[in-house]
Amino acid sequence: MPISKRYLHNFIQNLFMPSKVEEFNTYRAQMNEKILAQNNLTLNRFWNLDMHAYKEGALNTRTKEMLGLVSSMVLRCDDCIKYHLGKCHELGISTEEIFEVFAIANLVGGSIVVPHTRRATEYWEALNMETK
Amino acid sequence: MPISKRYLHNFIQNLFMPSKVEEFNTYRAQMNEKILAQNNLTLNRFWNLDMHAYKEGALNTRTKEMLGLVSSMVLRCDDCIKYHLGKCHELGISTEEIFEVFAIANLVGGSIVVPHTRRATEYWEALNMETK
Amino acid sequence: MPISKRYLHNFIQNLFMPSKVEEFNTYRAQMNEKILAQNNLTLNRFWNLDMHAYKEGALNTRTKEMLGLVSSMVLRCDDCIKYHLGKCHELGISTEEIFEVFAIANLVGGSIVVPHTRRATEYWEALNMETK
Amino acid sequence: MPISKRYLHNFIQNLFMPSKVEEFNTYRAQMNEKILAQNNLTLNRFWNLDMHAYKEGALNTRTKEMLGLVSSMVLRCDDCIKYHLGKCHELGISTEEIFEVFAIANLVGGSIVVPHTRRATEYWEALNMETK
Amino acid sequence: MPISKRYLHNFIQNLFMPSKVEEFNTYRAQMNEKILAQNNLTLNRFWNLDMHAYKEGALNTRTKEMLGLVSSMVLRCDDCIKYHLGKCHELGISTEEIFEVFAIANLVGGSIVVPHTRRATEYWEALNMETK
Amino acid sequence: MPISKRYLHNFIQNLFMPSKVEEFNTYRAQMNEKILAQNNLTLNRFWNLDMHAYKEGALNTRTKEMLGLVSSMVLRCDDCIKYHLGKCHELGISTEEIFEVFAIANLVGGSIVVPHTRRATEYWEALNMETK
Repeated sequence: MPISKRYLHNFIQNLFMPSKVEEFNTYRAQMNEKILAQNNLTLNRFWNLDMHAYKEGALNTRTKEMLGLVSSMVLRCDDCIKYHLGKCHELGISTEEIFEVFAIANLVGGSIVVPHTRRATEYWEALNMETK
Repeated sequence: MPISKRYLHNFIQNLFMPSKVEEFNTYRAQMNEKILAQNNLTLNRFWNLDMHAYKEGALNTRTKEMLGLVSSMVLRCDDCIKYHLGKCHELGISTEEIFEVFAIANLVGGSIVVPHTRRATEYWEALNMETK
Repeated sequence: MPISKRYLHNFIQNLFMPSKVEEFNTYRAQMNEKILAQNNLTLNRFWNLDMHAYKEGALNTRTKEMLGLVSSMVLRCDDCIKYHLGKCHELGISTEEIFEVFAIANLVGGSIVVPHTRRATEYWEALNMETK
Repeated sequence: MPISKRYLHNFIQNLFMPSKVEEFNTYRAQMNEKILAQNNLTLNRFWNLDMHAYKEGALNTRTKEMLGLVSSMVLRCDDCIKYHLGKCHELGISTEEIFEVFAIANLVGGSIVVPHTRRATEYWEALNMETK
Repeated sequence: MPISKRYLHNFIQNLFMPSKVEEFNTYRAQMNEKILAQNNLTLNRFWNLDMHAYKEGALNTRTKEMLGLVSSMVLRCDDCIKYHLGKCHELGISTEEIFEVFAIANLVGGSIVVPHTRRATEYWEALNMETK
Repeated sequence: MPISKRYLHNFIQNLFMPSKVEEFNTYRAQMNEKILAQNNLTLNRFWNLDMHAYKEGALNTRTKEMLGLVSSMVLRCDDCIKYHLGKCHELGISTEEIFEVFAIANLVGGSIVVPHTRRATEYWEALNMETK
C-alpha cells in the first residue's frame, strides 16, 4: 500500500535529517564561507552589496523583502525564495500578505511559477512550525 | 566498488520510497489542497483557469497538451514537464511523438534543455512501467 | 557633425510623433480591443484576472504595483515596465522610491537589467513631464 | 490634437516604409545570407538542422509549427513568433486556432507574454491583409 | 515596387539618423548620466562593480569580454550584446573568433538566439565600417 | 542537537551513495544512451553538433569551455554547470580562473545566480577531491 511506504520513508527522513529550514540555512552558511574565502574581490563586493540593498531606505525593509520575494518567484529560484521567505517571516509579514505576493508572482510569471509556489508554501509552513 | 554502492542505495530507495509518478502526484495534490485552502481569490481563479485552458476547442486536447509540454520544456520546469507528460500518456500519445516534441524543445531552447530531456525521458519510462 | 544630425532627427520625430506615454497607451488600448474581440474565453478571463490582482487587499495598491514593477524588470519586459511605471506614477510613488525598486531589480536580475533601467528612466521622465 | 499627429506620422510611415511582413522577411533573408557566408560550420549546421525539425514526421507540420509558435511566445522572442506565424498562415491555420495557442502561451508564461501577444496579433493581421 | 520604397526609407533614415554605433553610445551615455545623478547608492555601486569585473586578472580582458558577450547572447539582451561587441572590437578580437562565440551561444541558448545573432552581425559590421 | 542529526545523515549518505561526480556522470551516460536509442534524427544530430562545438578552432578549447560554463551559469542550469566544470577541470583551468568566471556570471545574471554558485563550488571541490 502506498501510504505505508511513504509513512516509513518520512519516518526515516525525519529521524536522520535536519528540518528544511535548518538544512537550507546550514548549507547556505557553509558554502558562503567557502566562496568568500576564495577572495575574489568582485564576487565578495557583489555579495556585500546584495546584503545592503534590502536595508531601510525610501522604502521600508518589509516592502523590499517582498520585492525580493516576488522577483525570486518569477525568476523561479527556489533557494532565493526560501531566503526571502525567511526574512519575511522574521519581519512578521502575515500568511495572507505572503499569498498576495504569491498571487502576483503567478499572474506575472504564469503557471510555470506554480510548482515553486508549492515548495514555497511548504517552506513557509516549516518556518511557522519552527517558531511555535 | 561503486556499482555495489549504487545497487544498495537503489535497493533501499525502492524499499521505502514511492514511485516517481506516485511521489509527484501525491506531493502535487497535497500542496494544491493547502494552497487552495488559503482562499486567495486571484490564485484560486488562476489555477481554475489553467485547468480549463487545455479542454477541447478549435484545437483538440492532444495538441493542447503537447503545446503545454513543449512550453514547459523550453521554460525548463521539471514539474510542469511531468504534469504534461502524465496527461500526454493518458491521451495515448506515442513515444515517437513525444520525442518529436522533445526535439523541437531542444532546438528552440538549446542545449540547456538537455538535462530536462533526460529527466523527462526517465519520467516517461516510469509512466510506461506503471501501466503495464 | 553628429550632434546636428541627432538634433534634426529628434526635431522631426517630435513634430510628427506622439509622446512616448501617449504612444504606449494608444497602441496598448488599440491592440487590447482587437484581442478581446476574438472572444477567446481563456485569454479574456486571464486578462480580467490580471487587472483585478493589483486591487487593494492585505497589501495595498502601492505595494502591489511596485511588486508588478520589480517583476517586470527582472523578467525584462519593457512594455510591462511602462505599464506599472504609469500606475506607480498615478499613485504618487516618488522618484526616490522608484529608484530603490530599480536597485533591487538590478541586483536580483543582474547587469542585463541595466538597459531596461535606462529605458525605464526615460519613460519615468516622460511621465513626469506630461503632468507638469 | 494627438490624433492628427499620429495620423500624419502613420501617413509618412506608410509612404516610405515596407509592410511589416515584407520588412521582416527582407531583413531576415539579408542577415541570414551574411551569417551563412561566414562559413562557421557549427552555426551553419545548427541552422540547417533547425529548418529540418519542422518537417512532417510522427507529428504533422501543422502541429510542429504550433509547437514552434507557443515556444517562441513563452520565451518572448518577437522575431521567432513572426516567423512561426508566417508558417502557420501558409499552412492555413485559422485565427481561432492561433488564439488558442496564444491563450496557452499566456497562461503558461504569464502576463509578461501579453505585450508579445499584442504584437503577434498585429502581425497576424498584417499576414491576413497581405493575402487578400 | 517594394525595393524603391525601402530605398527611399533607408535614404531618409541615413540622412537624419546617426549611425547605429553612435546612436547606441550616445543614448547609453546620456541615460547613464541621468541614472547616476539620482545618487541611489546601491545602483551606483553595482554599476561601478560591473565596470571593474572585466579588468585583467587571472583571466585576461579578451577572455572576459567574450564571457560577457556569450552571456548577453544566451540571455538575449541586444544592448548588452552591442556593448560587449564594442569592447571586443576595441580589443581586436577577429570576426572568426566572434562567430565562434555566436556558435556556442546559439547551441547553448537555442534557435531563439538566432534573431539576436542577426542584429549582432549587423552591429559588428557597423563597428567594422566605422573604423575603416 | 542538530549537528549530530546532520552527522548521522551524512554518514549514512556517504555509506550508500556514490560521489557527486560519479553520480552525475553515471546518470548522464545512462539517460543519454536511452535517448539516443530512440533514433530521433533531429535530437541525435543536435547532440552530436553540441559535442563538436567546443573543439579547438579560432578559439581554443579552454576559452570555449569557459564560454559554456558562464552561459550555463547565467541560464542557471546546474547539470550544464557540472558538465562544463568537469571539462574545465580536465583542461587544468585553475580555481582562481573558475572564480573569475563565477564573478562575471554573478554580475551579468544577478543574485539569482548565487545559489547555483554555491552548488558549483561544492561540485568543483568534489572534482578536486576525486583526483587527489
